[in-house]
Amino acid sequence: MATGGTAGASGASAAPLPIPESSKAMGEPILNEGYGVPSEFEKHVKRRRSDVFVNKQNYSDWSMTPLHQQVGIVTPNGLFFERHHNGVSRIDPEKHRLVVHGLVERPLVFTINDLMRYPSVSRFHFMECSGNGLTDWREPKSMTVQQSHGLLSCAQWTGVPLAWLLDEAGVKPEGKWVVLEGGDGSGHLRSIPIEKIMDDALLAYGQNGEMLRAEQGYPIRAFLPGWEGNTCVKWLRRIKVVSEPIQIRGETARYTDPMPHGKWRQYSMVMECKSVITNPSGGMTLKGPGSYEVQGFAWSGNGKITNVDLTFDGGRTWREASLEEPVLNKCLTRFRYRWNWDGSPVKLASRAMDSTGYVQPTVEEIARVREIVGFVQHHNGIFPWSIDQDGEVRNAIA
Amino acid sequence: MATGGTAGASGASAAPLPIPESSKAMGEPILNEGYGVPSEFEKHVKRRRSDVFVNKQNYSDWSMTPLHQQVGIVTPNGLFFERHHNGVSRIDPEKHRLVVHGLVERPLVFTINDLMRYPSVSRFHFMECSGNGLTDWREPKSMTVQQSHGLLSCAQWTGVPLAWLLDEAGVKPEGKWVVLEGGDGSGHLRSIPIEKIMDDALLAYGQNGEMLRAEQGYPIRAFLPGWEGNTCVKWLRRIKVVSEPIQIRGETARYTDPMPHGKWRQYSMVMECKSVITNPSGGMTLKGPGSYEVQGFAWSGNGKITNVDLTFDGGRTWREASLEEPVLNKCLTRFRYRWNWDGSPVKLASRAMDSTGYVQPTVEEIARVREIVGFVQHHNGIFPWSIDQDGEVRNAIA
Repeated sequence: MATGGTAGASGASAAPLPIPESSKAMGEPILNEGYGVPSEFEKHVKRRRSDVFVNKQNYSDWSMTPLHQQVGIVTPNGLFFERHHNGVSRIDPEKHRLVVHGLVERPLVFTINDLMRYPSVSRFHFMECSGNGLTDWREPKSMTVQQSHGLLSCAQWTGVPLAWLLDEAGVKPEGKWVVLEGGDGSGHLRSIPIEKIMDDALLAYGQNGEMLRAEQGYPIRAFLPGWEGNTCVKWLRRIKVVSEPIQIRGETARYTDPMPHGKWRQYSMVMECKSVITNPSGGMTLKGPGSYEVQGFAWSGNGKITNVDLTFDGGRTWREASLEEPVLNKCLTRFRYRWNWDGSPVKLASRAMDSTGYVQPTVEEIARVREIVGFVQHHNGIFPWSIDQDGEVRNAIA
Repeated sequence: MATGGTAGASGASAAPLPIPESSKAMGEPILNEGYGVPSEFEKHVKRRRSDVFVNKQNYSDWSMTPLHQQVGIVTPNGLFFERHHNGVSRIDPEKHRLVVHGLVERPLVFTINDLMRYPSVSRFHFMECSGNGLTDWREPKSMTVQQSHGLLSCAQWTGVPLAWLLDEAGVKPEGKWVVLEGGDGSGHLRSIPIEKIMDDALLAYGQNGEMLRAEQGYPIRAFLPGWEGNTCVKWLRRIKVVSEPIQIRGETARYTDPMPHGKWRQYSMVMECKSVITNPSGGMTLKGPGSYEVQGFAWSGNGKITNVDLTFDGGRTWREASLEEPVLNKCLTRFRYRWNWDGSPVKLASRAMDSTGYVQPTVEEIARVREIVGFVQHHNGIFPWSIDQDGEVRNAIA
């Protein structure tokens, strides 16, 4: 990451350029038909299941995106994070049906072919699990940003606005909430306020230019821009319009936030403004003093990112990072800052602000209004890394 | 693609909803580590080598993107088009070197690690082969849009602006062109005006969030936004600053355009404004009269797309399509138009305009200023499809 001067380069000698072996040989044959895969030299770049929770079964777990190895804002589909409650359902699109019923004038049943014939939209949005970061509130558990923040990815989603389907079914005046149910063995479902459904929710079938992967809910899933991943119900089979939330276990025992005085907050489904530095980040080692480009991601479920500030002294002073275009609504935004490291220990962190004026809080600020006990969801606190005199980067949450 | 009403849906019966098998079973186990692949039900979506040129060797050929199956503007890396002159080079990044020399003050040699330490940029841009469409100037040869336009893809590219490296090397006043040379067995190379290099050319190592695939020049390639694909030299090993183009075979016998009176045009490297309808397109069959969303791509190597007009009567009248945001510089733009087909034969086509005011021409207009003989490069003509009374869509170029 060193910048400027000839820090990264060596002067060419006057000797003739050596001819590499690749220039003297035929390449590998071109495949006649096929779907490409990454270079054999990039096999270390992969999703990983949590190393913090040791999980010995293969049906309910997280697979995390290597954010420190991602360039740009688009997460490749092969590296998109996953959260499963019951493994990966394999659904034949020819057999799958989607039902819209409940408090509607005209119940409807759709085949996938029906849905593919509708007009569609494509939009870039991040997706984040509500549990992203839940191991690292008060003390450092995660070694890397893949472990601490890797339940976060970003894609261009394609599908049909759910509002169009509900308008076609005709929502009755008493229909105020919508239950989304998946066709997986866990029967995962969530109650969603109808305002969100009618605002910008999608029935998504495409992701980054192609049909959804099985792990992402093939052939169809809900996609609620900026809302926690578990509301974006995969393998969607049922949309039921109801008058109030159905209070299933996932809405009472899970996906709630502990609050002061023994209360619990329900239906906190927006992922609020957040950011993290990905380069440098935990597990990396800086190769001596010099010029570095600090990079990271900022995102907000409430709008666009307007500012990212960086601190290199544990929060005493802040400097403004630059935001890379395009800066899109409810989408990852990459920030960059050219920094000169003098070789002494530092504690660095990022702080994002979104278009509503909301500023990413510290953990201390969150703890003043919520109760941080155990593995709490919705951790959008400022996240520091420390760099010691040897250049080693470590999780510095405390 | 039928829209509106309940054209695509059937009323739900009062019977209980059937429970699908997937809801009663465990899913597939979650992989512990790995890189995902598309659903098993999507194996028909793939790059294909040209069916128009029958090519029996495996080292010099085209693999085309299925544009009619792409959603959004990002082409998945696994479906990105390819053009090889000597197969796919497999290069170990630890061993690869990039040299900057010639008319510079300080010749430089870079390792890949050196280059990765520089600040970088990420930008969405299309890439198109100069030969895209060369089989279909005067008569229909291609059956599908994958064959006629599939040497076109789009990605977010990440890398170091070449201007930064050349500034570091110090270009001498007499340095006016730059030779880019690849490390493949064909020794592919091109002369590029230094103005383009200093304007927006990248030394790219990332594509759609991850490192380049081997087929795209891993570990590094040149990327010249909006310029023909062959100038974006893969497996880049040498950047030589020179005073004038070196006139190698690829610039005299190839990559030139025949002009009237026996002349040939050299160095026509910009891909000019162009568009094509991808849905419906050749090989599809419309399922009867009704409402359809017509979709396609527009792009320009000279700037942003400002307008796309559609004709359904062979060019007599035109209607304005909507452009999907974000509309980006030198990037694919998706256009959409809701159209009601009355079931009678039609001839439809799209016509794009870019931010310079340039309007995509007809083949007839191109033929007035250039000589169209044989397999001519740089076909950006308006491209019509016909739909007959049975709904069958065919290539209608003539």
